Amino acid sequence: MAADNKKMVEAITSMEDDFAQWYTDVVKKAELIEYTSVKGCMVIRPYGYAIWEHMQRILDGMFKATGHENVCMPMFIPESLLQKEKDHVEGFAPEVAWVTHGGSEPLEERLCVRPTSETLFCEHYANIIHSWRDLPKLYNQWVSVVRWERTTRPFLRSREFLWQEGHTIHATAEEAITETEQMLNVYADFCENYLAMPVVKGKKTESDKFAGAVATYAIEALMHDGKALQAGTSHYFGDGFAKAFDIHYTDKNNTQQNPHQTSWGVTTRLIGAIIMTHGDDNGLVLPPAVAPTQLVILPIAQHKPGVLEKAAELRDRLAKVARVKMDDSDNSAGWKFAEHEMKGVPLRLEIGPKDIEAGQCVLVRRDNREKTVVKLEDLETVVPQMLKEVHEALYNKALENRERRTFSCTTMEEITAKLQENGDGFVKAMWCGEEECEDKVKETTGVGSRCIPFAQENLSDRCVCCGKPAKHMVLWGKAY
Amino acid sequence: MAADNKKMVEAITSMEDDFAQWYTDVVKKAELIEYTSVKGCMVIRPYGYAIWEHMQRILDGMFKATGHENVCMPMFIPESLLQKEKDHVEGFAPEVAWVTHGGSEPLEERLCVRPTSETLFCEHYANIIHSWRDLPKLYNQWVSVVRWERTTRPFLRSREFLWQEGHTIHATAEEAITETEQMLNVYADFCENYLAMPVVKGKKTESDKFAGAVATYAIEALMHDGKALQAGTSHYFGDGFAKAFDIHYTDKNNTQQNPHQTSWGVTTRLIGAIIMTHGDDNGLVLPPAVAPTQLVILPIAQHKPGVLEKAAELRDRLAKVARVKMDDSDNSAGWKFAEHEMKGVPLRLEIGPKDIEAGQCVLVRRDNREKTVVKLEDLETVVPQMLKEVHEALYNKALENRERRTFSCTTMEEITAKLQENGDGFVKAMWCGEEECEDKVKETTGVGSRCIPFAQENLSDRCVCCGKPAKHMVLWGKAY
Repeated sequence: MAADNKKMVEAITSMEDDFAQWYTDVVKKAELIEYTSVKGCMVIRPYGYAIWEHMQRILDGMFKATGHENVCMPMFIPESLLQKEKDHVEGFAPEVAWVTHGGSEPLEERLCVRPTSETLFCEHYANIIHSWRDLPKLYNQWVSVVRWERTTRPFLRSREFLWQEGHTIHATAEEAITETEQMLNVYADFCENYLAMPVVKGKKTESDKFAGAVATYAIEALMHDGKALQAGTSHYFGDGFAKAFDIHYTDKNNTQQNPHQTSWGVTTRLIGAIIMTHGDDNGLVLPPAVAPTQLVILPIAQHKPGVLEKAAELRDRLAKVARVKMDDSDNSAGWKFAEHEMKGVPLRLEIGPKDIEAGQCVLVRRDNREKTVVKLEDLETVVPQMLKEVHEALYNKALENRERRTFSCTTMEEITAKLQENGDGFVKAMWCGEEECEDKVKETTGVGSRCIPFAQENLSDRCVCCGKPAKHMVLWGKAY
Repeated sequence: MAADNKKMVEAITSMEDDFAQWYTDVVKKAELIEYTSVKGCMVIRPYGYAIWEHMQRILDGMFKATGHENVCMPMFIPESLLQKEKDHVEGFAPEVAWVTHGGSEPLEERLCVRPTSETLFCEHYANIIHSWRDLPKLYNQWVSVVRWERTTRPFLRSREFLWQEGHTIHATAEEAITETEQMLNVYADFCENYLAMPVVKGKKTESDKFAGAVATYAIEALMHDGKALQAGTSHYFGDGFAKAFDIHYTDKNNTQQNPHQTSWGVTTRLIGAIIMTHGDDNGLVLPPAVAPTQLVILPIAQHKPGVLEKAAELRDRLAKVARVKMDDSDNSAGWKFAEHEMKGVPLRLEIGPKDIEAGQCVLVRRDNREKTVVKLEDLETVVPQMLKEVHEALYNKALENRERRTFSCTTMEEITAKLQENGDGFVKAMWCGEEECEDKVKETTGVGSRCIPFAQENLSDRCVCCGKPAKHMVLWGKAY
């Protein structure tokens, strides 16, 4: 791998010099993705896909623990079906891919490749829901969707992306709202406790709602560069879709009712989020919970007798407490250090002849490069403990970055000044609730409304823009 | 659920009366699928999808244990990419779905929705393979594909279906052939040891190869009605794709070489296969390994004090050894029996007041309806044992059906006579290797070549059709 070696140890662009280029370097050099000849569509390579598999496994467990079942809808939506809910079609029609031919024959009706599947779920619900006993249905599916974006970036905005979309239907509005909130909490729990990424929970403003929703909730994260990233959304639909799609049920009093719906989703974008939350100038830094390899064992002076055997013994022992890999390739130690740092492996274990003699090894943390000498017999205890410490350190560092870059402001001038002084970040400022002011804040200061946080603070009684009475504290930011 | 009750206990069509209608009744009434407004595309409902999830989990483990990694390719293939390998495009172009517009704008080049992904993998390999050190790549992906079929049936032939497609690339032909064989063995192992479905391993004839393959291997199963079903395929490509897509590597002697490739896949068709292998006039019969629920607990006289508590206690206890569900709905016992039989749950546990008093319960096997009184303290031992027995009984019954319906023939007249006398089945007969004879056997007797079994028998020295020297014993059958 001589040629590759050289490529791998070449430094990537520094984050401070060019964050966007740093990001592109990392996704390529950590072998997460490769481009294809279809613009905006990428190959998710084994290392990138393994991260997604861990995300799926954890989230799927959380969904099932909250009573959800997986299903699979078709990928195609007939044009007439997409058009049934007015707001929804207006939101999505401009960015769908249209299938017009099957083999050499034109289709009678064109089909779009699903950009999201509300319409398909609604058609299905109309078929299977008749009585209050059929409710609720708590469904989810893991699929890919297509949105014909103009500008694309790996994981962050691609024409095809992988996601899960939960779709639930309930007898009452209250139940549906509870579900919408519950799933936002599941997402926040996942981001914080598995991805080590702090998030702000809140409600989207009217102008920023999902097409067809009564209310959209979101979790918002702040990336290392101070830009905001919407990490997950949960929508409450009321009975709007049910009415548009003629979904009825007979309640306990034998009266016809429209049920109430929700949908919620997270995507492979979360991979982009962890790159930009935790990464550094040496590459990826992965939160242990989703790292394909949590501990890489590097035998030092591996040609010396007994080294490889000992390393293999440790690999087999530690496989019981972590996802372990041994790198006994013939690459140099320096190359291996760089390689596994680039790939963000949370812990590195070095073991050479002298260590073996002393009955110890060296554990190196990826996040802060701290080295600890550990007795071999303590490894089963120390490794899980250290993985936990890495998680906590990542979370705290990300939280510090967010706190340092969150600016409470009461005037437009203050917003501009704070951002100029400190660079991008979250702005907290009061808002009257008028779209006009929302737009004006964005035009003037560059930060748009990210959400109305559930945790409200009363920074002032006045809208930061018009000075009229304030209704909400809004979190503002530049969005990915 | 009064209205539904009635629907569920209505008898389904008998297998003997109309096997095709029986199949359709089962997929609908066991709630495996629901039709949609897109012809040939179906909703896989929670119960059907859960079966697929178990298949995925088991197969994915087998793929990973044999060194394979998951990736994800785009769903779109540019027309020019599809056209690079001549045989491949001829085989697939007539049945692909074409995307011609993104939003309101026509695309510069139309894209097909992948019918299979050899071309995408080849494009990727050309990018990432340079030296012998980059080989092999052992990749797999779990996705859906689209083939614009004219006649469709749930699971068996649909326009969109779920599958896994393995794609591997190797330095030598030998390695690639070994891989092709290995994966066919993995499929056979899976079908026999998890789906309880015996299969015949063999090679496809030239006329029946995958478009672009040097050789196609397949596993063939015989359904209850005597029709054959191809349950999985594994293709050896030689270096044909590598040449068409300019994939090169530098070998250890610093010489440019074309690598050798394989692909292999199984699909949601396997769900159709287990329905038609094990099902009966009461509905689905699921092999325990992929049954979403392996044991359903039915509390009898559940309003009596202590019954529900005891049933719940057993559920919690047995959850450690099997996938258990308790049905404490207010439906009648008769309705519950019918419902869980329809859904093919391998074991039913009945427990009522008298059983509790006696410290026992009744276990009922779905496959043969045999009832066994079991002491409550023995359940942890008996349940896994009985699940194993169900698996073995299903396998043996399916094997018997196949043996009973396999006819060795040495003349065309014999084929016709045996099939007329016994109904559909596998025919074993010798073949000269000429496509003309292969076609003529099908035209005359109705059975086409399924495969050239690896386990050859010498039934005669002469081709069953032309009487010239025979080259192979072929397995013939009517195919799903």
